[in-house]
Amino acid sequence: MAVAAEDEGRRKRAGGRAGHARRAGTHAIEQMSWRIPQNHDRPTEPMGPDGVLAIHNGAMRILRDIGIRFLNDEALAIFRQAGCKVEGNTVFMDEAFVMEMLGRCPEQFTLTPRNPARALPIGGKALLFGNVSSPPNYWDLETGKVPGFMEGFRSFMKLTQYFNCIHFAGGYPVEPVDVHASVRHLDCLYEKLVLTDKVVHAYSLGAERIEDAMQMVRIAGGMTEEEFRARPHMYTNINSVSPLKHDHPMIDGALRCARAGQAVIVTPFTLAGAMAPVTLSGAVTLSIAEALSAIALIQYAAPGAPCVIGTFTSNVDMKSGAPAFGTPEYMRATQMTGQMARFYKLPLRSSGVCAANVPDGQAMWETSNSLWAAVQSGTHMVYHAAGWLEGGLIASPEKFVMDCEVLQMIQRYMEPATWATTPEDIAIEAIAEVGPEGHYFGCQHTQERYTTAFYAPIASDWRNFEAWQQDGALQTPERAHRIFKAILAEFEPPPMDAGVHEELKEFVARRKAEGGAPTDF
Amino acid sequence: MAVAAEDEGRRKRAGGRAGHARRAGTHAIEQMSWRIPQNHDRPTEPMGPDGVLAIHNGAMRILRDIGIRFLNDEALAIFRQAGCKVEGNTVFMDEAFVMEMLGRCPEQFTLTPRNPARALPIGGKALLFGNVSSPPNYWDLETGKVPGFMEGFRSFMKLTQYFNCIHFAGGYPVEPVDVHASVRHLDCLYEKLVLTDKVVHAYSLGAERIEDAMQMVRIAGGMTEEEFRARPHMYTNINSVSPLKHDHPMIDGALRCARAGQAVIVTPFTLAGAMAPVTLSGAVTLSIAEALSAIALIQYAAPGAPCVIGTFTSNVDMKSGAPAFGTPEYMRATQMTGQMARFYKLPLRSSGVCAANVPDGQAMWETSNSLWAAVQSGTHMVYHAAGWLEGGLIASPEKFVMDCEVLQMIQRYMEPATWATTPEDIAIEAIAEVGPEGHYFGCQHTQERYTTAFYAPIASDWRNFEAWQQDGALQTPERAHRIFKAILAEFEPPPMDAGVHEELKEFVARRKAEGGAPTDF
Repeated sequence: MAVAAEDEGRRKRAGGRAGHARRAGTHAIEQMSWRIPQNHDRPTEPMGPDGVLAIHNGAMRILRDIGIRFLNDEALAIFRQAGCKVEGNTVFMDEAFVMEMLGRCPEQFTLTPRNPARALPIGGKALLFGNVSSPPNYWDLETGKVPGFMEGFRSFMKLTQYFNCIHFAGGYPVEPVDVHASVRHLDCLYEKLVLTDKVVHAYSLGAERIEDAMQMVRIAGGMTEEEFRARPHMYTNINSVSPLKHDHPMIDGALRCARAGQAVIVTPFTLAGAMAPVTLSGAVTLSIAEALSAIALIQYAAPGAPCVIGTFTSNVDMKSGAPAFGTPEYMRATQMTGQMARFYKLPLRSSGVCAANVPDGQAMWETSNSLWAAVQSGTHMVYHAAGWLEGGLIASPEKFVMDCEVLQMIQRYMEPATWATTPEDIAIEAIAEVGPEGHYFGCQHTQERYTTAFYAPIASDWRNFEAWQQDGALQTPERAHRIFKAILAEFEPPPMDAGVHEELKEFVARRKAEGGAPTDF
Repeated sequence: MAVAAEDEGRRKRAGGRAGHARRAGTHAIEQMSWRIPQNHDRPTEPMGPDGVLAIHNGAMRILRDIGIRFLNDEALAIFRQAGCKVEGNTVFMDEAFVMEMLGRCPEQFTLTPRNPARALPIGGKALLFGNVSSPPNYWDLETGKVPGFMEGFRSFMKLTQYFNCIHFAGGYPVEPVDVHASVRHLDCLYEKLVLTDKVVHAYSLGAERIEDAMQMVRIAGGMTEEEFRARPHMYTNINSVSPLKHDHPMIDGALRCARAGQAVIVTPFTLAGAMAPVTLSGAVTLSIAEALSAIALIQYAAPGAPCVIGTFTSNVDMKSGAPAFGTPEYMRATQMTGQMARFYKLPLRSSGVCAANVPDGQAMWETSNSLWAAVQSGTHMVYHAAGWLEGGLIASPEKFVMDCEVLQMIQRYMEPATWATTPEDIAIEAIAEVGPEGHYFGCQHTQERYTTAFYAPIASDWRNFEAWQQDGALQTPERAHRIFKAILAEFEPPPMDAGVHEELKEFVARRKAEGGAPTDF
């Protein structure tokens, strides 16, 4: 790891191939500039107000009468202190308590990473995309499917940094199993913080890991402890253990983050027909109850802590039990959860997901379905927005590039220029000038606008069949593979102050010498 | 052609392989039942009321001040009679005339084909899909790209009939250039009417062709002339010659259809930056003006004739001039046209389109974008919904099957069960019963519902990577190809009365003997 990081440093100092390419003015792709897309579409809301209330009332009944298990003694003590009924490790909370706690959540907040130019507003109309997170396996056209490895992890971090349409660096894009689990979080966070300057996520997998991550984010940002805690710079994502449970390390990490002023996303993983009811509103109700129980805990312990409600409700294939993603049921569940998030005034996280094993047609219709569901639901943070395959068991760089094409198109779709109706847009003068026999390409109105009038693709091939065939008949994943390799070749990490970099390396070295984190989870 | 049709007859009488397969209870796929999906989503409306008015006012200025050329003397005479200013072949019409004519259009109507069970309500919430229409070329995994041929045409007609999610048989799915142009329309309509019992389209390519088509639809339905003219049984689609022109045969065919009580779709083909302004609202304004001018003509000539406004506004690639489809600009233009269609109270036609040359990832993100735009725009008839490639230059059976998966998912997405919130859906009792340690698969609530709870795919593979790999690692187009072949193997044409079939064959034979239609277009 240290060697790899120094390679980066050398390449940057020496210029090298990437530096040369940049000086020569060539780029792997002509991509869209960094921006915070604003979702201007009115959300798609399948349920009426009575449906929203039915889910709310159902969630409140679950929290009051059925209870949620917290496998975390600190959480149980906090709930007791708050006056909730606690029997064994099951907590019962009433609506008044839950709604009071939800009232403490900010509707919007800002995540500020080490590069303040990459600060992310969470909530409102902002629609943000993150890289694929947590697959154990790596797949590309050259290697096929292999277990996650650190160089693959680094490749994804480079893609995450390179693509302007990727706003935040989520969990590990692949789990690098070639690094020992006791120190993996140190190496991974180090690579993340050096290779990107975007908002990073840290896993809640035990006290040491999340505390190390917070220290490293603090050091990378050149902050004092006080500065770090003054506002959110990073976030963790916790999952409930559906049905009806929260486990120890996730809740522990969430409390640590929230008390340090950092953001927490609470995302139940409720597969309808498996760990949730087979009916979609039932699965959403369970998910909402589980999420609200954790957010209530966080708000009691750290009032006003930035929280996001996540949805990961999909269905299983009832023939095989395999999870399905990007299905019609997934889309409706996401939209319904969006309605509930607005009811509770919480920012929303959903995902860009598919069940396909390779980046083919199925992968793209499933991913398109899930990404459009994110848009339609009013989602603020889209997890796994680029690179996900096989229901989250594979991360693929080709899929990453292909998904970024779709994300860029969504960003362009959100530009008000696409529906503007000023007199210059309506263009009556140009229509009169061109008349019935002319062509618009040559007219002044077109010449003034054509370079920026339309979305310019990165991986799409819009040539006719013969031109495409003559150029090798490359299908989408092959084109994406070439783009991936070209990006790696020209990649340069974002600048980092030498003293900060040194401090970060020292922190990693010291914590490794101390043995890292326990691996008994 | 006659031989091919008799083959069908023989196979049907003898049972044969297809009959055997059916008796044995095997099917190529387990598909969704026939239904008229209802679009329950509130349309996505990027423009405010001022934007709608800006386009309306722009269109009215074009019609009043710039004028539309009608390269059809009958149309010019009709406009003169209506009191419009006509200079040469340019017609100028004022808002009062246009709006009065639009007021004659039915907001909804029904198309009734030879099988009344396949009747289609046009307008309202109904969302209907048609097959790919008009590509000159055929592509499949075996043959590659070849010019259209009659057996390929027949294959697509079988897919059109087979798939319950395809509601109408649009134009020729491929142009069969192995049949002489003078008699092609006779053979094509014959095959269409024998191989399907769904609503058919007929091209407006000269008086003989459209009159022959109407006669054949009448005969296939066993109708008298009076019965045929009493209500719409078929439709034509006409395109303007953008900018600002309508040509002779299209207008002639539209008038013949409308006067015979049949439906007319008016679809300008306005590529922004080529034959329309580079700005999207400008391209939409031009498209609206061209469409309304033809609809006004039709309503003056045949008051109350069923009309549909079509959109085919997309953009070109400004580097190459190649048309692009399924782009963000395409989506917004479709949504904006939807707003205008509701403003004028006209049913809307849009399309399922892409620029990709093969059925890969790009094909599916572009097609998904255009199909979701159809949903979001409140489209009633989706042309080219299955099988389109290369910007309409290729029809592909694999793409047809893949698109039908997406169409079925949209149909499922529109089922109110996916967002129902009855107490049985919220499922509190099941959540209490399963508790925090159980699994939902075994519970009564699941057992009662699991067979119909979720969308069941036809071409998607939801197995994990290893199971998929062991089974041949087939990518989506390969799976779709197998399905295509299995459907051909088991296909049986819908029943047709022997006397009607005989009359249809006699009509075709007589018209062929008369020389068919002129080929000087």
